[in-house]
Amino acid sequence: MSRIAYVDGVYRPHREAAVHIEDRGYQFADGVYEVIAVRCGRLVDEQLHLVRLRRSLGELRIEGALADAPLKVVFREVIRRNGIVEGIVYLQITRGAAPRDHGFPKSVRPVTVVTGRRARPPDPKLGRDGVKIITIPDIRWQRCDIKSVALLPNVLGKQQAREQGAYEAWQVDAEGRITEGTSTNAWIVTGDKLVVTRAADHAILNGVTRQALIEIIRREGFGFAERAFTVAEAKAAREAFLTSTTADVLPVVEIDGQPIANGVPGSLSEKLRGAYRAHVTESA
Amino acid sequence: MSRIAYVDGVYRPHREAAVHIEDRGYQFADGVYEVIAVRCGRLVDEQLHLVRLRRSLGELRIEGALADAPLKVVFREVIRRNGIVEGIVYLQITRGAAPRDHGFPKSVRPVTVVTGRRARPPDPKLGRDGVKIITIPDIRWQRCDIKSVALLPNVLGKQQAREQGAYEAWQVDAEGRITEGTSTNAWIVTGDKLVVTRAADHAILNGVTRQALIEIIRREGFGFAERAFTVAEAKAAREAFLTSTTADVLPVVEIDGQPIANGVPGSLSEKLRGAYRAHVTESA
Repeated sequence: MSRIAYVDGVYRPHREAAVHIEDRGYQFADGVYEVIAVRCGRLVDEQLHLVRLRRSLGELRIEGALADAPLKVVFREVIRRNGIVEGIVYLQITRGAAPRDHGFPKSVRPVTVVTGRRARPPDPKLGRDGVKIITIPDIRWQRCDIKSVALLPNVLGKQQAREQGAYEAWQVDAEGRITEGTSTNAWIVTGDKLVVTRAADHAILNGVTRQALIEIIRREGFGFAERAFTVAEAKAAREAFLTSTTADVLPVVEIDGQPIANGVPGSLSEKLRGAYRAHVTESA
Repeated sequence: MSRIAYVDGVYRPHREAAVHIEDRGYQFADGVYEVIAVRCGRLVDEQLHLVRLRRSLGELRIEGALADAPLKVVFREVIRRNGIVEGIVYLQITRGAAPRDHGFPKSVRPVTVVTGRRARPPDPKLGRDGVKIITIPDIRWQRCDIKSVALLPNVLGKQQAREQGAYEAWQVDAEGRITEGTSTNAWIVTGDKLVVTRAADHAILNGVTRQALIEIIRREGFGFAERAFTVAEAKAAREAFLTSTTADVLPVVEIDGQPIANGVPGSLSEKLRGAYRAHVTESA
């Protein structure tokens, strides 16, 4: 079955799916995106993704994009046409195509692309064994709360992690505090069993999995604090884990070559992973 | 005459010129670019642009891009096919198209796009009257020395300048020192007639016009210092000006609503503008 992509109002074979060379996404990274998990053929936490999408578009003042209702129809049509049961839907909206000039074009219409991909859920081995991460300086811009396609530093950071045999790189701000991974949010569990993740300031993206997990943590009554933590604190933590749409909740067992606690996934991380996966199944 | 663009080996009508939706330039800002001025049908400082291009590609480890010789042929063909006498050539090279994943794809081939645009040289009125600028916080990433297409903060800054009736926004680092404009380099002339521009560190792009002008300043024997300067120093300067491929050398007569000296273009700025324009004519 050949893949089908939605491009600016038309469904096209994936390999012919293209955008104009003067699309501002291509020339200026002037656009936003979302990645939504599909489980059992249904979108996970779709509404949270749509709320964040509107926020990103609003911050960049990209006006006239498809409304939620037609977007939802496109998501479902992409899922249907690609026969996705387990996988992801990828959405990108740019300011549109216009003669190249930095400022906003006077007359421009946003361009929407939606693709779907079948993919197995995250390898359960990763969840069982946990993953290794490295830490790197956070060299990104100061509005990482906007889910823009200006992802070049994230690309370089992820590549650095891979080349060092790690799953992810946690980025560290000028004060030595961890912001987030290159495509995941960062969490620790402190000695007194407090689950800690950085508050959703301008330095991190407010992950949908992050939001869903915070809801679960509060509902289940675990101790929780939204605050920044240092690399030293993470390395000395009782547990560490990361979250993202495609990774779910993954225990971190090593930071910069140093084992976290006894080097195996922590029990609270495992509990939260289980609770999140139950949430995914329920909401899908 | 319809415009023609070079896209990955093929010359196409501009309106049909497209890149794949999984081009990493579009999804990750994983690519670099150059804008080269065309004067009298010839490329200005082409070699300096090519040297910088290779540096940008090298920093991002984008391998296998077109070599200089074939690129030069493409530039000339784009100029010819578009009948450009005065204008610009725009070059973009991305890491290529591959299934979306942050790290470098294992198997990928860079994609090159070259477009040409006829344009009048910068309005002489701007040179005669000078331009107004504003200052804004520099919120960009920490590798602005790489000429990448991750230009979203530059887009937002330029737009802010326009909405405040200014030609450009000079960005200011955490120490209160000016880095550069959103698409131009920043310069001042101090009370003792020293021409000052920030050294080409990781916070600015080493502009080709900047490099050419430094060469002229040295040759002509003007006092010169490569160092950072503060907003306060700029506002109190004897003269200020900016440089870029498309703007040449433009006097700055107002910063944040405050006139520079007596609010008209400075004499040294005018001299340098003349010298640079002579250089352009000679080299073209």
